[in-house]
Amino acid sequence: MGRVTERRRVIRIRDGAVSTRPDTLVAEEPMEIRVGGKPLAITMRTPGDDFALAAGFLVSEGVLASAGELANIVYCAGATSGGTAGPDEAESGGGGNSYNVVDVRLADGVPVPDISLERNVYTTSSCGLCGKASLDAVRTTARWALDTSPDTPVRIAPETLSALPDRLRAAQRVFERTGGLHAAALFTADGELLDIREDVGRHNAVDKIVGRALQQGRLPLSSAVLMVSGRASFELAQKAVMAGIPVLAAVSAPSSLAVDLAVETGLTLVGFLRGSSMNVYAGEHRIALDAAATTG
Amino acid sequence: MGRVTERRRVIRIRDGAVSTRPDTLVAEEPMEIRVGGKPLAITMRTPGDDFALAAGFLVSEGVLASAGELANIVYCAGATSGGTAGPDEAESGGGGNSYNVVDVRLADGVPVPDISLERNVYTTSSCGLCGKASLDAVRTTARWALDTSPDTPVRIAPETLSALPDRLRAAQRVFERTGGLHAAALFTADGELLDIREDVGRHNAVDKIVGRALQQGRLPLSSAVLMVSGRASFELAQKAVMAGIPVLAAVSAPSSLAVDLAVETGLTLVGFLRGSSMNVYAGEHRIALDAAATTG
Repeated sequence: MGRVTERRRVIRIRDGAVSTRPDTLVAEEPMEIRVGGKPLAITMRTPGDDFALAAGFLVSEGVLASAGELANIVYCAGATSGGTAGPDEAESGGGGNSYNVVDVRLADGVPVPDISLERNVYTTSSCGLCGKASLDAVRTTARWALDTSPDTPVRIAPETLSALPDRLRAAQRVFERTGGLHAAALFTADGELLDIREDVGRHNAVDKIVGRALQQGRLPLSSAVLMVSGRASFELAQKAVMAGIPVLAAVSAPSSLAVDLAVETGLTLVGFLRGSSMNVYAGEHRIALDAAATTG
Repeated sequence: MGRVTERRRVIRIRDGAVSTRPDTLVAEEPMEIRVGGKPLAITMRTPGDDFALAAGFLVSEGVLASAGELANIVYCAGATSGGTAGPDEAESGGGGNSYNVVDVRLADGVPVPDISLERNVYTTSSCGLCGKASLDAVRTTARWALDTSPDTPVRIAPETLSALPDRLRAAQRVFERTGGLHAAALFTADGELLDIREDVGRHNAVDKIVGRALQQGRLPLSSAVLMVSGRASFELAQKAVMAGIPVLAAVSAPSSLAVDLAVETGLTLVGFLRGSSMNVYAGEHRIALDAAATTG
């Protein structure tokens, strides 16, 4: 996998002084996801955890919900994505394995997803349907409710949430070297780190976490908190819901549609999580506010 | 257009004190782009400048390169994106205009793009082809070289570049209120602001700038500098190249594939543009380094 970072020559300008040196960059490469041999989607990702990325992507898509529905995942030896051939083949090693095409084989009886315009476009960072219809689509495809025991929901203390950004940053390995990676981390409601992934695309980081959980038989993640390093878009909220994660916390702002989805599905959505401050946009019943004074 | 922001109720927690108040969020809604009535792509975007977004998207796709190739762009009245109908239609106003579906009509003789898997997936933030093949694809579809006069390229002083981030931030209108927007701005080589767009998706902000330039007959933008508020991904570098923009500057890190594309196409790529410091990853012949001392 060792392609998480790559070295390139860079000219540094510092207060008028110019120097040339090598620089470490986050690696970005396309990966084509096939299901049963048929191309389904291509995503720009940081190489590594490719099988988890493919599995998590298919959880987000509503194709997979348990490890038993997955037969296996393989790299396509000799495959060059996009159907190109000829000169590139020679350059990439004469039909060798580029490690940029993975094929997911579903267990017997698991429906193969439609390869239609809506599905394909949906896969990247769009929802494939207009606002209201999107929310309906998520409700339809999610295999579980966010709380398995609605009377005793997961509860997390504000102090625990406040500690997550520092833990996320402390656990980021590649960001320090490149400054170019988004991170997503999974925590328990007590703030214990369960998993962290970094990727050039924030949606990939979440898919990698969800895919690993699927591979380990841990879906739905009904007592976990997902923390993301940036903003909370509709897409990330949707991925949390599809994995059964009841709490999504973001360092920065959510979008309007992310809030709407959280309200519709009961997802707890926390934004602007900085120091001892945070905004709770939906699902506040999972935040332990008892100890806190309520004003205005 | 007035849907750039939306208001939602938020519970604020500040040092243990809890209050409820309205909050301003960046609006995020899906937009379906059709060409000649046929769906081509869906993008999650901040409403506003929708026609520019559609036009710029088609420049990035290699479909459009001049205003003369564009007949007109309209909202599809009564259209509900994704082909859904029934209950949603009633809720969205009985077949009224959702302003989330636009149809681009090409001028006579302009080839309608293929609606194939590769094209659709390509449209969002993927390239549709594996590394080397992607670079080839860009070289094939770009209609112009980055320098119309290779012997006298655009040159920009480091001091001018250093001033751009503050100008970008000063011109951002919505970010101050929501903290949730990416920005892209177009400058002259002297640092004069030509245009700025904000969007929940950084690729949309760039498409909106490029689309407006196309509509105004200003493509290729062969003497402009594109500044983005975040990181420089392959996708953003590709959009700059497709619009004929010779210089891309980013506040944060570039990815490996963005640098590779810049080297291949001759794009000047500047990253980590902060204060008087910056990294030049490619195309340094456009940076006026004469006055600066060269060391090590």
